[in-house]
Amino acid sequence: MDEFGCIDRFFNSIKHNRTDVLLGIGDDAACLDVPVDQHLLVSCDTLVAGVHFLETWDPYDIAFKAVMVNISDIAAMGGDPCWITLSLTLPDLNPEWLSRFSSGLSTALQKYNIALIGGDTTRGSLSIGITIHGITEKNHAIKRSGAQAGDLVYVSGPLGAAALALEYVEHCINTHDHAVFMQHLHRPIPRVDFKYLLRDYASSAIDISDGLLSDLQHVCTASGVGASLLLDNVPIHTLVRKYSPDNADNLALHGGDDYELCLTIPAVLNSSWLEAIARVGLKAYHIGWIDDLHGLRAINADGQQSELKARGYNHFGVDGYVNELA
Amino acid sequence: MDEFGCIDRFFNSIKHNRTDVLLGIGDDAACLDVPVDQHLLVSCDTLVAGVHFLETWDPYDIAFKAVMVNISDIAAMGGDPCWITLSLTLPDLNPEWLSRFSSGLSTALQKYNIALIGGDTTRGSLSIGITIHGITEKNHAIKRSGAQAGDLVYVSGPLGAAALALEYVEHCINTHDHAVFMQHLHRPIPRVDFKYLLRDYASSAIDISDGLLSDLQHVCTASGVGASLLLDNVPIHTLVRKYSPDNADNLALHGGDDYELCLTIPAVLNSSWLEAIARVGLKAYHIGWIDDLHGLRAINADGQQSELKARGYNHFGVDGYVNELA
Repeated sequence: MDEFGCIDRFFNSIKHNRTDVLLGIGDDAACLDVPVDQHLLVSCDTLVAGVHFLETWDPYDIAFKAVMVNISDIAAMGGDPCWITLSLTLPDLNPEWLSRFSSGLSTALQKYNIALIGGDTTRGSLSIGITIHGITEKNHAIKRSGAQAGDLVYVSGPLGAAALALEYVEHCINTHDHAVFMQHLHRPIPRVDFKYLLRDYASSAIDISDGLLSDLQHVCTASGVGASLLLDNVPIHTLVRKYSPDNADNLALHGGDDYELCLTIPAVLNSSWLEAIARVGLKAYHIGWIDDLHGLRAINADGQQSELKARGYNHFGVDGYVNELA
Repeated sequence: MDEFGCIDRFFNSIKHNRTDVLLGIGDDAACLDVPVDQHLLVSCDTLVAGVHFLETWDPYDIAFKAVMVNISDIAAMGGDPCWITLSLTLPDLNPEWLSRFSSGLSTALQKYNIALIGGDTTRGSLSIGITIHGITEKNHAIKRSGAQAGDLVYVSGPLGAAALALEYVEHCINTHDHAVFMQHLHRPIPRVDFKYLLRDYASSAIDISDGLLSDLQHVCTASGVGASLLLDNVPIHTLVRKYSPDNADNLALHGGDDYELCLTIPAVLNSSWLEAIARVGLKAYHIGWIDDLHGLRAINADGQQSELKARGYNHFGVDGYVNELA
């Protein structure tokens, strides 16, 4: 066990300047000060080699992504990320690997001023378990269950680039394009910039990790509603159209790992919502509306409906899985 | 991935009646109400098959123990356990196994009115990762770093029974005795009953998971002090003396998994501390004192000193490990 004590040095070097961490790594528990006007948000996501990333990835990217996908859950609630614990399972002790991992972890945490407050390392097949803690103004958490018939459905940005990266990882010969879509896969940026907009306007929100239809279906199930989508309005990343024109819709509707937000806006708030997003220089794409009929439907230009089936994205097609308690 | 969706039913059936859980399993994050006069405590412990338990154990016990060792960390801070997230890694889907596991989890959580607020399941070698959240009165968390020279060292109960269980698991022929010491290994009871006593009297505390000397050394290191121990005063479980008389000291000093508390009491508070524990019907055992000289020493009846070496307990002597960030 002692030989692994040296792992600590890779994590104890990660600094933060949060005054709400009264006690961090090194005691039986961390001790934290939650502001009196805030609720606590807690979420955990495990990233497994072969399911969410490949062991051949740069450990910097693995750590960076593990943090970002957890932040994304807090962003989808309209919260501020604050603290994480890390459960790292490693097949062996490789100082070079750990050094790169620690560097990616540190960069990701410092980008959002998040503190690492505890954790452990275990021998086993490579996986990264993070529990993230955030805060949000009391009674202002944005839930999946708040969507109502008549609400408008929006997404926060173009979709499909991360799924494209998985398909074209070895085939793209344009260096610049390759770098751009690999960035979407390796270093997703959670949409914490939508925090105040969510709080002021959204009736529900979810981050798009499994794929647009799959995640919108989660919202509909939780809210007891359905949705009709204008497929031509779904924003598709330009590189997806360029490299996968025949499969672009599929990647945008079913591709996971984009970490954009899908949210619903009550119709009466729509014009002030549009003014507000323009005022802060953000964009959002209207892709449909919520209705009473369960399930998801596509509406074409003639008003004709066809059923849409949500399906989770099978990242690497291997025998690993993660199942979120839901 | 869908075939594992059925895992949910084993966890969604676990009920709680906490009004501070505003949103539990099933959204991007849980939403929780931390009382305004309390600090938040967070700790995580992963239990790995072959290191902390054997795969042959009753899954009920595996789940029960995983919860209890996490509660023990909150107990050592003087806190109240409230909520957990669960990251369960499973080699395969076995409904009977999951049913027993869920039953042990449910029993353990309900015993302390703790809510399961999130989690995920992953395919891999069996391990149970829990992040536990507790609360404690603001500025009253009991740290490892508060011990000062002159403080008295106490433990909350007899030691060695869990370590004995590991050694004698297949050799004990007395059914009743066997049941008693296996209970210590499989179903440890964290000392949350010391909460108010810790808050009112203790300068430091730690739960004994690695072994008395190892854990007391953690306190001394964090506090920048050392300790002298009266070995004859260290309480040894009666069954340890009965079944392992020649190795009893070793099991009590180095054996892990007892989950009793080791705590320090300032000398000026000692008489009121003794009155207080008697008043609530608890027991604690005075085993030594804190001094300025670093390291751990045994003091014999003649006042002679000999150095004591802490060493972590090697649970099953296999090639697994968990290393806590410290």
